[in-house]
Amino acid sequence: MRYFKSDNTAAVSEEILRAIADANHGVALAYGADRWSEALDGAFAEFFGTPVRVFAVSSGTAANSLALATCCPPWGTVLTHAEAHIERDECGAPEFFTGGAKLSLVGGAGAKISGDDLLARLTWFEPHVHGVQPRMLSITQATERGAIYTPQEIGVLATIARQRGMSVHMDGARFANALVAQRVSAADLTWKAGVDVLSFGVIKNGGMNAEAVVFFDPERVADFEFRRKRAGQLFCKGRYAAVQLLAYLQTGLWKRNAERANALAARIAAAAPELLSEAAATNQVFMKLGDTRIAALAADFGFYPWGPMGSGEARFVCSWDTPDEDVDALCAVLAKLR
Amino acid sequence: MRYFKSDNTAAVSEEILRAIADANHGVALAYGADRWSEALDGAFAEFFGTPVRVFAVSSGTAANSLALATCCPPWGTVLTHAEAHIERDECGAPEFFTGGAKLSLVGGAGAKISGDDLLARLTWFEPHVHGVQPRMLSITQATERGAIYTPQEIGVLATIARQRGMSVHMDGARFANALVAQRVSAADLTWKAGVDVLSFGVIKNGGMNAEAVVFFDPERVADFEFRRKRAGQLFCKGRYAAVQLLAYLQTGLWKRNAERANALAARIAAAAPELLSEAAATNQVFMKLGDTRIAALAADFGFYPWGPMGSGEARFVCSWDTPDEDVDALCAVLAKLR
Amino acid sequence: MRYFKSDNTAAVSEEILRAIADANHGVALAYGADRWSEALDGAFAEFFGTPVRVFAVSSGTAANSLALATCCPPWGTVLTHAEAHIERDECGAPEFFTGGAKLSLVGGAGAKISGDDLLARLTWFEPHVHGVQPRMLSITQATERGAIYTPQEIGVLATIARQRGMSVHMDGARFANALVAQRVSAADLTWKAGVDVLSFGVIKNGGMNAEAVVFFDPERVADFEFRRKRAGQLFCKGRYAAVQLLAYLQTGLWKRNAERANALAARIAAAAPELLSEAAATNQVFMKLGDTRIAALAADFGFYPWGPMGSGEARFVCSWDTPDEDVDALCAVLAKLR
Amino acid sequence: MRYFKSDNTAAVSEEILRAIADANHGVALAYGADRWSEALDGAFAEFFGTPVRVFAVSSGTAANSLALATCCPPWGTVLTHAEAHIERDECGAPEFFTGGAKLSLVGGAGAKISGDDLLARLTWFEPHVHGVQPRMLSITQATERGAIYTPQEIGVLATIARQRGMSVHMDGARFANALVAQRVSAADLTWKAGVDVLSFGVIKNGGMNAEAVVFFDPERVADFEFRRKRAGQLFCKGRYAAVQLLAYLQTGLWKRNAERANALAARIAAAAPELLSEAAATNQVFMKLGDTRIAALAADFGFYPWGPMGSGEARFVCSWDTPDEDVDALCAVLAKLR
Repeated sequence: MRYFKSDNTAAVSEEILRAIADANHGVALAYGADRWSEALDGAFAEFFGTPVRVFAVSSGTAANSLALATCCPPWGTVLTHAEAHIERDECGAPEFFTGGAKLSLVGGAGAKISGDDLLARLTWFEPHVHGVQPRMLSITQATERGAIYTPQEIGVLATIARQRGMSVHMDGARFANALVAQRVSAADLTWKAGVDVLSFGVIKNGGMNAEAVVFFDPERVADFEFRRKRAGQLFCKGRYAAVQLLAYLQTGLWKRNAERANALAARIAAAAPELLSEAAATNQVFMKLGDTRIAALAADFGFYPWGPMGSGEARFVCSWDTPDEDVDALCAVLAKLR
Repeated sequence: MRYFKSDNTAAVSEEILRAIADANHGVALAYGADRWSEALDGAFAEFFGTPVRVFAVSSGTAANSLALATCCPPWGTVLTHAEAHIERDECGAPEFFTGGAKLSLVGGAGAKISGDDLLARLTWFEPHVHGVQPRMLSITQATERGAIYTPQEIGVLATIARQRGMSVHMDGARFANALVAQRVSAADLTWKAGVDVLSFGVIKNGGMNAEAVVFFDPERVADFEFRRKRAGQLFCKGRYAAVQLLAYLQTGLWKRNAERANALAARIAAAAPELLSEAAATNQVFMKLGDTRIAALAADFGFYPWGPMGSGEARFVCSWDTPDEDVDALCAVLAKLR
Repeated sequence: MRYFKSDNTAAVSEEILRAIADANHGVALAYGADRWSEALDGAFAEFFGTPVRVFAVSSGTAANSLALATCCPPWGTVLTHAEAHIERDECGAPEFFTGGAKLSLVGGAGAKISGDDLLARLTWFEPHVHGVQPRMLSITQATERGAIYTPQEIGVLATIARQRGMSVHMDGARFANALVAQRVSAADLTWKAGVDVLSFGVIKNGGMNAEAVVFFDPERVADFEFRRKRAGQLFCKGRYAAVQLLAYLQTGLWKRNAERANALAARIAAAAPELLSEAAATNQVFMKLGDTRIAALAADFGFYPWGPMGSGEARFVCSWDTPDEDVDALCAVLAKLR
Repeated sequence: MRYFKSDNTAAVSEEILRAIADANHGVALAYGADRWSEALDGAFAEFFGTPVRVFAVSSGTAANSLALATCCPPWGTVLTHAEAHIERDECGAPEFFTGGAKLSLVGGAGAKISGDDLLARLTWFEPHVHGVQPRMLSITQATERGAIYTPQEIGVLATIARQRGMSVHMDGARFANALVAQRVSAADLTWKAGVDVLSFGVIKNGGMNAEAVVFFDPERVADFEFRRKRAGQLFCKGRYAAVQLLAYLQTGLWKRNAERANALAARIAAAAPELLSEAAATNQVFMKLGDTRIAALAADFGFYPWGPMGSGEARFVCSWDTPDEDVDALCAVLAKLR
């Protein structure tokens, strides 16, 4: 079976394992007082070209939920796309961490929110106590349908958000894939465009079990650290999370892995471009195959049918370590099935 | 500087790193559908001599809090020792995960709860809606002052708990240290004595970043799995947590590491037995040194003064990888300071 | 100014005030141990023709939220209409009381959910830990757009819900209005059709500050009482809430008041039937007036424009004590504006 | 049976009922936009001699919990007496409303906290993420054992609190009883001494079902109003709560009722002064009667044995409407039992 189910079925890059082994000597003070954890802020500041505060957590769900809980009061609401991971795939984690804040959903092709859609949705909220108040916008980069936001698009959304007193969160579970897909900097895609806090994904792109929460505004860190501890996300042996993040940034792993995954996806997309249901901008490929083709593929390939039952759509995800031959095989079959 | 601050400053055992490297090949289905995660129940069933359900989480705080949240309603209360980790060192995580259940504190020497103390504390609660209801007992094994509960002692507590409709949780952050300190089985210390759910510690005793929650009653798992996901504690690359737990059990690492740590602590205790403020049953040594001796030691040794300011007490913790020469050095100084 | 803003701007019926005065003598045991509170279960059992457990609370929001919290775990979701009061007008109270359960929205004309829409929405949820699980259905009777569910319609929804293991909640803030609008019994509209728990509205229909939560299944009461206390909704002087509910039922006030309010609304609807945007089944009238007519009316009448800005729709609500002359005046102007 | 169980078994003063009847005419805008609700801030400002923001809620538990939730983050802790109502009699409501903040208990005779005890307790908390952070002090006036804090005593506590960045909450369920027991002003007992937010009790002292939350610092109101709505404590027919508070203040009812209740308690205390286990400063009398006397009294008098089983202590509470003859009877029996 050749797997295209998700990039989270991949193994861990050697650079990560090596960094762990290298740090595995002697005593290191617990709970983030080790030298690797203490190097995080600096390493990410360099990557983003601005001072930041960075915290490791053990999953994307934890990263997203803690970020939201820090910036949204219980009586607030987070505007997000109806297909967002925080809405669909986290079993209510944002509601749990925020103490019951509501997610308010926005539509949009490619799982992307447009400025117009955001503005329209915001008209629903009135500044009185009967309804929850818009306090955050959360966008996913790359989106759950593989699309990317440009710096300009983010800027439009962030400007609207700021005018309404909302913070901007980016779920960057596949941030590296979105970044290498554009000729822009990490800064362009985040703080320069108005992002306040970023869930910086590592695991799907070669990491083992550490993601980062990146705050571009140090003031917002005020209660994050207490919430992280209280959520069981402050690790006693912090070095083993920190070195993953450091190796990911400092060896260029983020770039190599994302570029390879994106390139493999591009090959799949090119194998049957007329079947694409989304432009394949990053490492995810969405195709309208129809149920017959899906059934034919399912014997040899692991992948997810997508969307509502009977939609005939399928998703193929490439990871940093997807074998070339698996992509070859898929492309060959797709070419035949066209 | 020679460190005796905590066993969580230790490195990771080679057996753990090797198991991770061995599992790092190719695709593994995400979120616990990999073969290592699926082997957890069986491996722990063998270890405990009874069917169990086992789940990996990333910290002891997460293990404890999820276990409590599964068994205690928001209007319930968890009886625990006033010095318990869940009360003192988790920043309110149990309250967060349970939706605001209360911890009700019991005293007792050695951070141990006696049957009499438990019974006395239970008289405070009346079966009416004005007060929270006792629904869980949580004990720590080994305790926060290095003491151990015998199977008989646990049995007494569990019988009382059961008669009041309470579940029994054991915080086993140092379970292995407590186990090797007695000539009893893992079963004797847990389900045979009446424990319902165990936070099974691995990290302090050679692990990297995985602890286990062990349910001896499968019915109690009902909502645990949803709560785990919702807490950001279900890992997409589950194999890297699972293999840590498997290696820990199956290579005998738990035993080797705990025996060494305990033996080192025994040497320290023997160096100045008249200064001991607790019997050194496991890998923690508590000594009433007085502030002068503490100051003298602090130049060369890293350790925590303990208890309220001015108590003159100090805690020394040995880990699986504390260098022999560090223990030699500490013993020598202690002998001189007697 | 003549007011048609809401039935919650009305005064309190004399029957209610008299009952309060009658109970205002001497000592009554606190927290529901008074004889009026103890009579609630019996009085409601008679009204509904089946044994019930009944609890007074101080607002409809409290009634709804406590009912939901009792039947839906934090990782569950409550399916409800997108225009439901619990979604739009309670500032996230359901999320707060449930510990972060999610509301999942269903569409439908008249703010009513159809069986087909419910079935379609249920296909979104998969029985895995990544998503919240459908555990409750909440419908409003009469709906937020004045429509009513028939016993048959409720039965269809409840059957679907039960097959998916979901409880059925009815927000009956205007239950009496819905009941007198049909030739059916209170039993037909609730437990006989499959409703498990009912927020039984009193305040809008002549009461002062007590609503009732009615459980048709006594087993579900298990943790409600603790949650009520914990929410500050157990009143020490319980008699003053209980007598409101008793007088409401036992003097026939519920019927007289609801019939009058519905009749007044029918007169308004009849004044310009071609402008109606909803059938005026109960005491609410929705009309597509256009912004010009709305502006013309606003000088003399207090009412709410409805729906999104620019919709041109208006809502007129009659209460038990809306003056006949106010209705006359509104009808006259509407007739002129046709 | 003559009742001395609690002042919450009393009836409602005529002044309150009359005010309700007087307001019961015609339309009043909902949710606090009525003229009585709008008069609350002014009436309380006059009473306290300073601008305040005032909100009606339906129970003391709601008042306390909402006040705490407004000023204490989830990772904070509220220092309070071990016998405080918020700890012992609210079924965990503070934990629920705050999202899981912890109560940290302080001892002290008469259920009063001393400055020394507060300072000692504060040494337990360290400014790191492992433990909850002291953010509020909550004291009860009069205390759960009938004692009063003087302005000076409150000032000492508030100064300590302020130096640690903590807000000061006063649970004034029996505030009027404490006020008339001293020759001081309402201002002296609250904001002048450093109280930030007050649960202002009305129900026990003649009210029906409205208490007030009084903020002396308007900035703290920021999120209170959302939390109140979200807790189901914003009443649609707000006038019926507001008029209770207005009548209570403006007719001098608070004073008349409290003075009478205190005077009756003083008579009981004088009947057997050597049996007193607390000075009877307000309307509660605590006596060490021994189990024999308690049993003898129980035939004719309703009251609560107090403290742990076998303590032999009893509590007698007088209310504004306790019959003189009931007090006579109790005094006579106590005199005989001496």
